[in-house]
Amino acid sequence: MKKNYKITICYDGSRYYGWEHQPDRDTIQGKLENVLTRMCGEFIDVLGAGRTDAGVHARGMVANAVFDATDKERGGRERTPDEIRDYMNRYLPDDIAVKEVREASERFHARYKAVGKLYRYTCYDGPVKPVFQRKYVAVLEKRPDVEKMQQAAAYLEGKHDYKSFCGNPRMKKSTVRVVDKIEITRKGSFIYFDFHGTGFLQNMVRILVGTLLEVGKGKIRPEQIPEILEAKNRQMAGPTAPAQGLCLIKVDY
Amino acid sequence: MKKNYKITICYDGSRYYGWEHQPDRDTIQGKLENVLTRMCGEFIDVLGAGRTDAGVHARGMVANAVFDATDKERGGRERTPDEIRDYMNRYLPDDIAVKEVREASERFHARYKAVGKLYRYTCYDGPVKPVFQRKYVAVLEKRPDVEKMQQAAAYLEGKHDYKSFCGNPRMKKSTVRVVDKIEITRKGSFIYFDFHGTGFLQNMVRILVGTLLEVGKGKIRPEQIPEILEAKNRQMAGPTAPAQGLCLIKVDY
Repeated sequence: MKKNYKITICYDGSRYYGWEHQPDRDTIQGKLENVLTRMCGEFIDVLGAGRTDAGVHARGMVANAVFDATDKERGGRERTPDEIRDYMNRYLPDDIAVKEVREASERFHARYKAVGKLYRYTCYDGPVKPVFQRKYVAVLEKRPDVEKMQQAAAYLEGKHDYKSFCGNPRMKKSTVRVVDKIEITRKGSFIYFDFHGTGFLQNMVRILVGTLLEVGKGKIRPEQIPEILEAKNRQMAGPTAPAQGLCLIKVDY
Repeated sequence: MKKNYKITICYDGSRYYGWEHQPDRDTIQGKLENVLTRMCGEFIDVLGAGRTDAGVHARGMVANAVFDATDKERGGRERTPDEIRDYMNRYLPDDIAVKEVREASERFHARYKAVGKLYRYTCYDGPVKPVFQRKYVAVLEKRPDVEKMQQAAAYLEGKHDYKSFCGNPRMKKSTVRVVDKIEITRKGSFIYFDFHGTGFLQNMVRILVGTLLEVGKGKIRPEQIPEILEAKNRQMAGPTAPAQGLCLIKVDY
């Protein structure tokens, strides 16, 4: 019997062209669909909570997929959610892992039912390169002023039109979003930028980080942030921070 | 003026043929020598505290090298140790980092003056592959019995002839070593094996771990360890655990 499954996934995005399937390119969605298609013997669609960019990582991406988990080779017994998880992990490359599979209600939709997302962006500004974390951080040349960035972040929290922070110049729909928390913390030479919100525009977290880092360098004053929001112009914000520092931590339902 | 420098190095050994330089192969020693040779304009020897195997990592390998740190392009000023470190890190690949450079006494020798080494071997036995640590752990199929392994480890501590745990069948010199601490701890799905000793034979830590894991699986009883030591025969011990779980944490002087 076909059921709807909620699938929680962890991945190192370094060698992928992002989440969304593309012909002839390795993507996370493509790999997941291949494995479920192999298991089920027919093409299975995997719907993600969002599309991460090429090079972005995830510790808790959520997707859903509707399929019949009957194991034809074992007398038509239905695979349990843990058996589906184990099957997927056996055939997935070692930079993608399924953390959990759960039966969900028919109406569960990973994208439409998501009510919040938490992203973490990690920077490193120590004197020595972080060998073991090198693929998961953005290395900064200079120490930014964390306090100034925190002041700027306060202006960015709330419900705003984030058009200045949208990477898609042809965005037709509303660019208003709610970001209820931006927390910036330093631990040794690592600086973590945590963003929690109802949803994010294309490249939005990376442009927010790129802009906050300009504040940290003293190129933008915290008090200029309202003008940048007001302008609704991508040119006014800072650059798009590199993908490798970004990780989708969790999706709320 | 030529000085002797103590150099502390961190590396992800995944893509290297071990520490020791080899013609036409990437090795850690080879990379370090290339960078110092480039800096000094003449071939510089880098002497390591020991030779890690292909695929083994280090957080605190120590080496020494004798060279003249004069910067000819900047009016013959001598580079400070931090400047040497920064120069090396600028030209090293991103999976090798120099953590510290210090002036040492003439008599300092990274290998002969070492009085102790700490190695950590990391296993993982959770249901889901550890995506972000995948290159730094050995994944186990089943949960081993940690208590049994701790009992076996107690027999392995002390001053012993570790010939049964030596990977070099043609070892001519003494195979007696002192291992003053073997600690096995579980944190969640990670199991850490910490070995502290005055020195280790070729592959010794990996064979100790391979043997302890056989104990953890119930294939060897802890009480059999004295016989295995006694036998002085590599065949009696367990297999060599995979290189990627091993990391040289520090060297004592």
